[in-house]
Amino acid sequence: MVGVIFWQGIRVSNTSSELRKRVLSGMRPTGKLHLGNYMGALYNWVRLQHEYECYFFVADWHALTTDYADPSKIKDNIQDVVLDFLAAGLDPEKSTLFIQSRVPAHAELHLAFSMITPLGWLERVPTYKDQQEQLKEKDLATYGFLGYPLLQSADILLYQPDFVPVGQDQVAHVELTREVARRFNQFYPSKTNPEVPILPEPKVLLTPSPKLPGLDGRKMSKSYGNTLGLSDPEPEIRKKIKGMVTDPARIRRTDVGNPEVCPVFDLHKVFSSAETQEKAREGCTTASIGCIECKGWLADAVVAELRPIQERRAYYEANPALVEEIITTGNEKAAARAAITMREVKTAMGLGE
Amino acid sequence: MVGVIFWQGIRVSNTSSELRKRVLSGMRPTGKLHLGNYMGALYNWVRLQHEYECYFFVADWHALTTDYADPSKIKDNIQDVVLDFLAAGLDPEKSTLFIQSRVPAHAELHLAFSMITPLGWLERVPTYKDQQEQLKEKDLATYGFLGYPLLQSADILLYQPDFVPVGQDQVAHVELTREVARRFNQFYPSKTNPEVPILPEPKVLLTPSPKLPGLDGRKMSKSYGNTLGLSDPEPEIRKKIKGMVTDPARIRRTDVGNPEVCPVFDLHKVFSSAETQEKAREGCTTASIGCIECKGWLADAVVAELRPIQERRAYYEANPALVEEIITTGNEKAAARAAITMREVKTAMGLGE
Ligand code: SF4
Ligand code: SF4
Repeated sequence: MVGVIFWQGIRVSNTSSELRKRVLSGMRPTGKLHLGNYMGALYNWVRLQHEYECYFFVADWHALTTDYADPSKIKDNIQDVVLDFLAAGLDPEKSTLFIQSRVPAHAELHLAFSMITPLGWLERVPTYKDQQEQLKEKDLATYGFLGYPLLQSADILLYQPDFVPVGQDQVAHVELTREVARRFNQFYPSKTNPEVPILPEPKVLLTPSPKLPGLDGRKMSKSYGNTLGLSDPEPEIRKKIKGMVTDPARIRRTDVGNPEVCPVFDLHKVFSSAETQEKAREGCTTASIGCIECKGWLADAVVAELRPIQERRAYYEANPALVEEIITTGNEKAAARAAITMREVKTAMGLGE
Repeated sequence: MVGVIFWQGIRVSNTSSELRKRVLSGMRPTGKLHLGNYMGALYNWVRLQHEYECYFFVADWHALTTDYADPSKIKDNIQDVVLDFLAAGLDPEKSTLFIQSRVPAHAELHLAFSMITPLGWLERVPTYKDQQEQLKEKDLATYGFLGYPLLQSADILLYQPDFVPVGQDQVAHVELTREVARRFNQFYPSKTNPEVPILPEPKVLLTPSPKLPGLDGRKMSKSYGNTLGLSDPEPEIRKKIKGMVTDPARIRRTDVGNPEVCPVFDLHKVFSSAETQEKAREGCTTASIGCIECKGWLADAVVAELRPIQERRAYYEANPALVEEIITTGNEKAAARAAITMREVKTAMGLGE
């Protein structure tokens, strides 16, 4: 819930003539992204779009489940996520980029699922009580907060994916999604072909995502204030990295260090070339370089990673009409795909078609 | 929940240039109507449409709240309600006739309301526990059954009515609707004019509807099996009325009767002319007529009431393409009106617009 990404889905299309797998994923609009968010999601998404049929969306209804009492930031956050999508390199020619609330079928499938879902299933979702506890300054004893995993199930099943690649913390939600699909298919066999379930049960696919340490060595997280921001300007990146904690045993310049316990080196492993990594390891373990020098190399690598992202972001920020057009087109394409599922769902449930 | 009608709404349009009041009402598709349903709803609706801007819809999502496990009858029931609308004399030139599930904004506004509605509000709706008790052969411990009054609130507020004329049994639901509107308006003032709330609190307007006795003298109700059906052919109507209970004290033809305790006379009051009523009263209280004669006059009146309804029904049944066109047009008109509300709602909540 507090994380930014909430799920990703991959599927093999079930129309036999079309063999490209479908990927879809949503992101809650919770503010500007940091490097940890980026590596755990957008970095992967950009690579997926070359191979899969991709749908990526801003999960703005989900933002309201926790922030309904003060939605003042949601609008700007949505815009930020859209810009982050494009800045990271999601290509509107390859991927369908859209906003959840602009595709009414998400709300409709959620309503359909509400009819068949026992209250107990939702009350027992492990994150339900946890999140209420963690966010106890907010009043989350609402109907919508209880139903939030069911909205997620609708988000997923609306695009009929075969796989849902997620982090460990979202496995329970996918399990609920599978149960909902199973119950739906039991109650409502397809009218056109009763052998083929309307909503295939998606399988969990745990995605590898590097655990990025923050400036203080703990997990990089907005709530710890230890992040490198995706939009931080170069001087700020360099300054932040310069202040990072290192191997605590390396006190003097002449002490040898152990890269395996150093957060700086953990970031090298993600962002630096093999050559630079080797140079840093060698220099550290022989005390032939200082930490300042090592951090300078890391900063070079991070800045190089961020430069094209920041350039694309600046480009799209300067062209709001283009961004709007991309999203409008994406909303329409997503709605058209969702309509295929909803037509089957409504017919099977006996609703007016 | 077991009744057919669930609410009606009247409003004065809040655009100053347009002073026609708006009426809207929904009906759950639960099967063929009887005379009691008709007098309590459609009979009034037909008269409203000459004076008001009218929206009437088939509440098919609501049918799923109780019948999700076996939706096999819903589709036919929807078609029956549509035919009953037209048969009763609702005029598609005057009224917008539509199907709830075909206007996705109902699901969207329900989702929006879910975010702000405390679970306790729904758990305390008096009908919640009552209905679970009454329908205990069905498993109604679902998320959707708990949220059903909130869907009703969305149905109502989507059209921004000023008044909601209802029967006594629905007053608690309208009270919930008023609370939801109030809470929504507190959280989300209009961006265009913060002085005017987006969702005016509708007021309850108790509608007079005659309590029609059934054949056995109890309230006419499908569950008692004591009804005169709107589609019953003339011979069946005559036969049913002939078998009705009368003043139990009038045992012999020569006994005088008391029309005020006779269900036959209650129906005379609704369906017969003042003249016939007087003739029946006089004849009964002087024992100058028999009950068979009195019932014959009633049957004449009921058959006369039903004849144009059954003729219109036969006409529309023979023209399914016309019915389809009427509903398609109605769906579009309703969706256009709902879109006005949803645009304001989404903007105020900070969702992507
Ligand atoms: S030299 Fe690099 S790897 Fe070694 S302790 Fe310093 S910052 Fe860490
Ligand atoms: S004569 Fe008519 S009003 Fe009197 S008891 Fe018989 S049916 Fe009833």
